[in-house]
Amino acid sequence: MRALPFLYLATILETTQVIPNNLHLLRPHSGLAGHNVEGIDCLSWRLAVETDNIRSWSTVPEDCESYVGNYMLGKQYREDCQVVADNAYTYAKNLTLGDDGLDIWVFDIDETTLSNLPYYAQPDVAFGAVAYNSTAFNEWEAKGIAPAVPANFDLYKKLVNLGFKIVFLTGRSETYRNITIENLKNVGYTTWEKLILKQTSESGTTALVYKSTERAQLEAEGYRIVGNMGDQWSDLFGTNVGNRTFKVPDPMYYIS
Amino acid sequence: MRALPFLYLATILETTQVIPNNLHLLRPHSGLAGHNVEGIDCLSWRLAVETDNIRSWSTVPEDCESYVGNYMLGKQYREDCQVVADNAYTYAKNLTLGDDGLDIWVFDIDETTLSNLPYYAQPDVAFGAVAYNSTAFNEWEAKGIAPAVPANFDLYKKLVNLGFKIVFLTGRSETYRNITIENLKNVGYTTWEKLILKQTSESGTTALVYKSTERAQLEAEGYRIVGNMGDQWSDLFGTNVGNRTFKVPDPMYYIS
Repeated sequence: MRALPFLYLATILETTQVIPNNLHLLRPHSGLAGHNVEGIDCLSWRLAVETDNIRSWSTVPEDCESYVGNYMLGKQYREDCQVVADNAYTYAKNLTLGDDGLDIWVFDIDETTLSNLPYYAQPDVAFGAVAYNSTAFNEWEAKGIAPAVPANFDLYKKLVNLGFKIVFLTGRSETYRNITIENLKNVGYTTWEKLILKQTSESGTTALVYKSTERAQLEAEGYRIVGNMGDQWSDLFGTNVGNRTFKVPDPMYYIS
Repeated sequence: MRALPFLYLATILETTQVIPNNLHLLRPHSGLAGHNVEGIDCLSWRLAVETDNIRSWSTVPEDCESYVGNYMLGKQYREDCQVVADNAYTYAKNLTLGDDGLDIWVFDIDETTLSNLPYYAQPDVAFGAVAYNSTAFNEWEAKGIAPAVPANFDLYKKLVNLGFKIVFLTGRSETYRNITIENLKNVGYTTWEKLILKQTSESGTTALVYKSTERAQLEAEGYRIVGNMGDQWSDLFGTNVGNRTFKVPDPMYYIS
């Protein structure tokens, strides 16, 4: 089971070849990868993005495309995700849950439980260095073939075993409910309490407001948000954020 | 003026030699510094700390002492600070301030405006890998010789020129008011609206609550907190956090 996401990703790569072998070196450049790019320090840019110091950015700086590509395809991204997941599990396993089944863990979907890396690694997407193309992204999403984020899939299984109820709260449109269910199940996310998608009527609402409203609704229904995990700060800020939040790395795009 | 912090640091190093030359290599190890330490990925640990995923930690993991030392003494820390300061200035310069002198920028002091790196680089402090010793730290603080954090000193000057009033809000004890004033002035922080230190009666209060209370008081007095900068998330979370917050890197210690 544990190897499933990797196998799945490998299958995708074999069958669709969306990641050209020669576009980005998998090994970091010598020294600190991206450190010596003229004009911008990509390591500092990424840290500033991850710490919410740079906000409302639309694309990865052109100079950092290779750096972000190396990071996302290399082992540092996976290890960064693993450390967050490990800390989330350490937190979760030391809690005593109620016996009413109302302790929930909220997971965002894209770049948290499912990975769109095969899409983002395409040359005309360039790890977010090219402007977001909603048509192309929606076509990718509709395929329903996103692999799991391995560290968080592993966390998910452990949380289910601990007795947590899982709530997926995503900015994906309600129109993608069936394909999202199929995608989640295909990669191993087989059980959940709720899958909350964005309604058409909410399409003009920011993620921050939409997700705060949905979390407030969950609490109004009696659920206790014990943990809340997402790759965007808009998953974790606002109201009713839960007892602990966990920020998953994502230097490819920003959602407000 | 701009070179003052560096000159000051150089003077400290010459006169007190608190940073042994041979304790930590100034150059990162080859590859990603600290990446291959057994058992713990120090890059991932630092990212998780900076993104508030690891909380309430008491010391830098022993395995990461050299990594954190290299980081803090090398150019990546300075560049990481610079990118945060640059983004803060970009935000600040595009604002229109009121003409009532009530637009304030809140700065934390330690590791935000003043640097305790000469203290933390000592062998028996080990960049936070040795347990915090309040007696020894207080002795260092009482010397009043902490250099400025260069990027934030530069930002401070620019903010003053833009017309911001500066408020220093620090967890330092009121008993250190005079030495703190002397230290700030000596390194070039020559003007401010308020310098708020922690009263003895507040010594049992967390930084998060203490700083939230003080910021609420500032707003009650009519001030508008336009920017708020600190190296701890407890500087930036809670209530009355201001219109924008900026998290300065600090992998050496955690304050709740």
